[in-house]
Amino acid sequence: MTARTPVSQLAALPDGPVTVAGWVETVRDQKKVQFVILRDETGSVQLVNPAVRELDPETSDAATADAFAVTNEISALAHGSFIKATGTLKHDERVKLGGLEVKIESLAVVSEALEAPIAADSSLDKRLDWRFLDLRQPKQNLIFRVQTTFLHALRTVWVEKGFIEIHTPKLMASASESRAELFQLEYFETVAYLAQSPQFFKQMAQSAGFGGIFEVGPAFRADPSFTSRHATEFTSIDSEFSWIDSHEDVMALHEELLVAGFQAIADKHGDEIREAFGVEVTVPSRPFPRVTLADAKRIVAERGYEVPRADADIDPEGERQISAYVKEEFGHEFVFLTDYDSSIRPFYHMRREGDPSVTNSYDLIFNGVEISTGAQREHRIDVLEAQARDKGLEPEELAFYLDFFRYGVPPHGGFGMGLARVLMLLLGESSIRETTYLFRGPTRLLP
Amino acid sequence: MTARTPVSQLAALPDGPVTVAGWVETVRDQKKVQFVILRDETGSVQLVNPAVRELDPETSDAATADAFAVTNEISALAHGSFIKATGTLKHDERVKLGGLEVKIESLAVVSEALEAPIAADSSLDKRLDWRFLDLRQPKQNLIFRVQTTFLHALRTVWVEKGFIEIHTPKLMASASESRAELFQLEYFETVAYLAQSPQFFKQMAQSAGFGGIFEVGPAFRADPSFTSRHATEFTSIDSEFSWIDSHEDVMALHEELLVAGFQAIADKHGDEIREAFGVEVTVPSRPFPRVTLADAKRIVAERGYEVPRADADIDPEGERQISAYVKEEFGHEFVFLTDYDSSIRPFYHMRREGDPSVTNSYDLIFNGVEISTGAQREHRIDVLEAQARDKGLEPEELAFYLDFFRYGVPPHGGFGMGLARVLMLLLGESSIRETTYLFRGPTRLLP
Repeated sequence: MTARTPVSQLAALPDGPVTVAGWVETVRDQKKVQFVILRDETGSVQLVNPAVRELDPETSDAATADAFAVTNEISALAHGSFIKATGTLKHDERVKLGGLEVKIESLAVVSEALEAPIAADSSLDKRLDWRFLDLRQPKQNLIFRVQTTFLHALRTVWVEKGFIEIHTPKLMASASESRAELFQLEYFETVAYLAQSPQFFKQMAQSAGFGGIFEVGPAFRADPSFTSRHATEFTSIDSEFSWIDSHEDVMALHEELLVAGFQAIADKHGDEIREAFGVEVTVPSRPFPRVTLADAKRIVAERGYEVPRADADIDPEGERQISAYVKEEFGHEFVFLTDYDSSIRPFYHMRREGDPSVTNSYDLIFNGVEISTGAQREHRIDVLEAQARDKGLEPEELAFYLDFFRYGVPPHGGFGMGLARVLMLLLGESSIRETTYLFRGPTRLLP
Repeated sequence: MTARTPVSQLAALPDGPVTVAGWVETVRDQKKVQFVILRDETGSVQLVNPAVRELDPETSDAATADAFAVTNEISALAHGSFIKATGTLKHDERVKLGGLEVKIESLAVVSEALEAPIAADSSLDKRLDWRFLDLRQPKQNLIFRVQTTFLHALRTVWVEKGFIEIHTPKLMASASESRAELFQLEYFETVAYLAQSPQFFKQMAQSAGFGGIFEVGPAFRADPSFTSRHATEFTSIDSEFSWIDSHEDVMALHEELLVAGFQAIADKHGDEIREAFGVEVTVPSRPFPRVTLADAKRIVAERGYEVPRADADIDPEGERQISAYVKEEFGHEFVFLTDYDSSIRPFYHMRREGDPSVTNSYDLIFNGVEISTGAQREHRIDVLEAQARDKGLEPEELAFYLDFFRYGVPPHGGFGMGLARVLMLLLGESSIRETTYLFRGPTRLLP
């Protein structure tokens, strides 16, 4: 490895020789002194060089000759180039950037950059065209460090509970959710579809006696919409587990995971997030508020908003309104909307004992936007088949799935949650395009 | 949640009332006493019921009536049905299965099973047809618990190093590895391809200044072969990081990860693996042996095997032979084969300074089979372009990728490793079909 000190570790070092490596964020090439802000994946540091603009070969000593060479190199430095610099670390509280600087002794351009075609204030679409440059912004980098911390905290909870990590196939012989919004491909002598969710396969794990499972992986929707919340490919966080009594058990696990994830984020990145996004990370208190869908629509109507939908569902504005209400009333950023009508839920959601018009299901709303759907699943094969028929589905195409239930499966449930949405709403970003490494939409397949 | 005690926790409980839940593994319905082996995701336990075969309604007390009911329920129990049983735990060292049993007081069939169409000794293909039943075998279940432990250990190493978890898109505008073995799909007004690897996108993270990244996700190859090592969809473990000096740095990280992963497996599952697979988990010592490809072919030839290939590569039998040699000579299950010829490596592998006929790359062989390819990448745009042309590639199709290098990228490298292969070779299984949750091959898309 290149012997280098990550920038974040400089503060703890005594004054003395160091080597740093990263890319050139800015250059201030003043007549008498030159400054380079070098950034690496951990932070940024000021490099300084007293400019030597002229060299008299007869009188100059070796050190002056070196300084002359460095001066010329800095004057020629392109923003974005990756460099390696060796010099002397000096703590100096007058230096705004971290109270330290490195006086350059030698500098090497490792990889020279063309002039960047975007700036921090370029349009989102243009930034996405040049995503690899966009991601050099400290704010964008932080998003993915937060993502890393969040997922590791979730997985640690699952592992401690004895849940099993699975990787379900994304190539399927049939649709997992609906025939709409389905990507299809030639597959040797037949056709395959891209999984819209791991739904069937995570339920399979229940019949397989896995107890509890989790998966973080891609899901695909041929969704032609261009909203700030939709993508054709997204990272889905999924969990499913057995021996539940109702969707309340699913919500309890869901809460536990989010609390652990947000706590880890607050501990590790709280200060950075405040600085970069102006957002205070709030670790949610348990239990999260719960409101039935019927109550939510009544409350929203009382606030003057009639949901303009023909079906029983709520709409994005309704979700924003109920979320605002919960924030005002309970000071909570999350709310479980429960008891969704059977008419607007998939056939595999369990319907309420004694009232089959509602399901044992929920949506989780975070800061005004739905981030997840969870439910108890119907595990009784006769009821499940009837519900499939009720939704106009072909039992033949579902045969492999229905088999899971014919050979025994315990009561179970789970949820799927969109990773990019959680990050978007946590950080107050305006679109999942900002919180997805490489966004995919109807007109975006590059880079 | 259903109040139940996971079977693995029974041993630590005192004698007394317990509830267990799981599926029926076996029933021994003897005249005077009935035994049920119940299994859950943590283990199996013997349930016992003194059979009451006749009931005289006039003389029998309530307890006898209950026992009569339980007797009939057990007699009617189908293998594979999920049940819940309440009874009295009794430690008794005469009981072979864990030295304890549960005397049943009440029993409920939660989900009744049809008779299983497979047995443990069914053909692999038939077991895969009924994978959800196949996975109920303790041995199969263990594979996925080992997988969970392995991946969590790897991720913990990465997280502690400050590596960032990324989720690269699986929908691409062009091929990432080669035009061969590429799945293509209609994508709105254009076509998309399924990612054969995250190669381009994990390198993008280096230009984006992420430093080090990791990803565990699916990769897709339209590979028509039916070997024990190939699948059309597989879980790839990928890492990539900056500021390396050569592929030696990549191998060092690779070793560190595998040692951590195997140590975690040995600690958590060593005994179970010995029992179920007859395999001793060996935590590999560092450094792993390294053999150049040229030396490997010479050594293999000296053992009497001439690699029957027209190109410079080694073949699967050659890999087995060199692995056997290393095992004999150094007592090591791993070997890095290094210095692969440029002619048989992708354009993005860095060629050796001073000898461009070899690359700064390696394959990692574990117990005779290749599990991974790693390399230092070429980060100099002019060299990279020349190497692409040298391989007959169209620079236009690679334009978005080559841009990463035009705007600066530090020296970097990484590897991709097949998860199912690691598990197969660790556990001495004969095919990745056994160590993949749901295998996908040219003729297998179901379940």
